[in-house]
Amino acid sequence: MRRTRFDADPCPIARVADLFGYWWTPIILRDALFGVQRFEDFQKNLDVSRATLSSRLTRLVDEGLMERVAYQQHPVRHEYVLTEKGRAASDVLIAMWRYGEDHFWPERERPPLELAFRESRATVRATVVDETTGRPLDPGELRIQRRRS
Amino acid sequence: MRRTRFDADPCPIARVADLFGYWWTPIILRDALFGVQRFEDFQKNLDVSRATLSSRLTRLVDEGLMERVAYQQHPVRHEYVLTEKGRAASDVLIAMWRYGEDHFWPERERPPLELAFRESRATVRATVVDETTGRPLDPGELRIQRRRS
Repeated sequence: MRRTRFDADPCPIARVADLFGYWWTPIILRDALFGVQRFEDFQKNLDVSRATLSSRLTRLVDEGLMERVAYQQHPVRHEYVLTEKGRAASDVLIAMWRYGEDHFWPERERPPLELAFRESRATVRATVVDETTGRPLDPGELRIQRRRS
Repeated sequence: MRRTRFDADPCPIARVADLFGYWWTPIILRDALFGVQRFEDFQKNLDVSRATLSSRLTRLVDEGLMERVAYQQHPVRHEYVLTEKGRAASDVLIAMWRYGEDHFWPERERPPLELAFRESRATVRATVVDETTGRPLDPGELRIQRRRS
């Protein structure tokens, strides 16, 4: 399938969409953020073909979100360890969680899984705010402008 | 290209990924959030084929993110108006903006575009926090658990 590449687009959303638009990539990142590192463990959790998983992990390494590290020599086995760039994807994934939870189930139904604090087990409800003021961001109050250099 | 569908997955991230994984969909939503409504305007802004644009807009209507409203009768012309579910996608897109801006440009470079407040023109730096405490969310402190019904 031919597709338009957005990885040189001037819009930050387009560049992230270019990576996240590969099927499985957000799901693999979710598992990685929650501690999965080994090829076999991703495959067991996700029920994805080896070829697809391998291709997605390679792209994540190429894009600098993961590092491929040997953890065993005979035979060689690798772990996929998140870099800082990979860990930083968590904000996007958490925002996706909240949006999916609120809007992608039929009314009066809730997803069977929830995001919670590890210690208290309390449900997490995430929201996106302006870092400086802590205020929620309403696109009606925002604009896209040329950066002053 | 055959693909796995995630639109019945128990994980909220997977369901959102299923929709956002269609090329162009996040970019079309971005423009819609900033006021674009007409087919011709999307096409002019995005330089996308009519067939692809039409298919993405139809999916967004089918998924309940947009409503198709006639604004002219002879000939019939439609606008695509965001629903509440469509507007709620803004948190995900804003989180993508921040992530892309911080991590998808070469070091010492910044994207040519920035997100800003409409009134003050001040740059927006978005972050994802827990709604109750206002604290940033670190995946290391989180877990995925079965929802108590």
